[in-house]
Amino acid sequence: MTNARRRGPDLTEAIMRTTMELGQEIGYAKLSIEAVASRAGVGKHTIYRRWPSKGALLLDSLMSLNGPALDYPDTGDVIADLRAQVHTAVDLLARGPFSHLFQALVGEAQNDPRVATALNERFIAPQADKTVARLKTARDQGQLSPAFDLDLAMAILSGPLYFRFLITQEPLTHEYVDGILEALFTGMGPRQ
Amino acid sequence: MTNARRRGPDLTEAIMRTTMELGQEIGYAKLSIEAVASRAGVGKHTIYRRWPSKGALLLDSLMSLNGPALDYPDTGDVIADLRAQVHTAVDLLARGPFSHLFQALVGEAQNDPRVATALNERFIAPQADKTVARLKTARDQGQLSPAFDLDLAMAILSGPLYFRFLITQEPLTHEYVDGILEALFTGMGPRQ
Repeated sequence: MTNARRRGPDLTEAIMRTTMELGQEIGYAKLSIEAVASRAGVGKHTIYRRWPSKGALLLDSLMSLNGPALDYPDTGDVIADLRAQVHTAVDLLARGPFSHLFQALVGEAQNDPRVATALNERFIAPQADKTVARLKTARDQGQLSPAFDLDLAMAILSGPLYFRFLITQEPLTHEYVDGILEALFTGMGPRQ
Repeated sequence: MTNARRRGPDLTEAIMRTTMELGQEIGYAKLSIEAVASRAGVGKHTIYRRWPSKGALLLDSLMSLNGPALDYPDTGDVIADLRAQVHTAVDLLARGPFSHLFQALVGEAQNDPRVATALNERFIAPQADKTVARLKTARDQGQLSPAFDLDLAMAILSGPLYFRFLITQEPLTHEYVDGILEALFTGMGPRQ
């Protein structure tokens, strides 16, 4: 009984990996905790003890992909660093093999406040903090207007990506990201 | 048999009004075409003939609220006009009594491509066209940088609103909208 001996991190990792594999195969709508348990060779209560819903399980599974990949570099050039990080985020979440699962997770957050809260606590807020920290360094170095609200800057950077990902559902390209960044720095008004 | 005599626009209006009322009362998750049919006093096939899913029915019902309310004024001051229109849109869709239904509709669009397509064709694309048209007038009058990509400007205006509405789920305030608009026009870079 190999499965019965798996404990702690190994078991958690196996369940999350199975969730991602099965989610990719059959889609989020058909995914169930029962199916994950069966594929992973564990009892469903083993999963329910830790994850109260398939939304919670998918969230943890998706988040386990990130690791340090979404940290910001600091080369001294804030535009280049924002561009590099956002390209990585887009490739990981919005264009990669998991994009439909991430999309389904945000969809679930519209109907389940617990998923919405967990998504924010586990992913959105920590990423926002990293973005604001990188912008603050740039502001301290004179690369940003001193008066600019950094939380607002974060929302203007992130919002258009989610708008395309969730609303128009057009492909998220690096060119689009680059255009947003350039526009955010130069502004739309006529140059003085 | 009053209901049997209702035809065409009257019947359509009654079904859509009932959808909104019942959706507000019980929430989108519990809403069903059967329940709408029962409350409206029509057969469910009457509804299914026109709307293949509750997502499609909710979309039409929500869109019937708009009318010309989301047109842009043209007072000659593009920032004031954008601000007025976006305040109206936020009050109607993201803060009003229908905000949870609109949120649920976007959630549904993440799992049902037909709902996503209909949402874009019926609401997002026409509104985007209006925004771009108003921005184009402003650009022609020298109120915008000549080189600015107007589709990108539309996404930067809309994106942060959806980011807050769908992702962080913090309240959408007029102050937030005003901050986005100001940032979009002045840009984040240091002033020359």
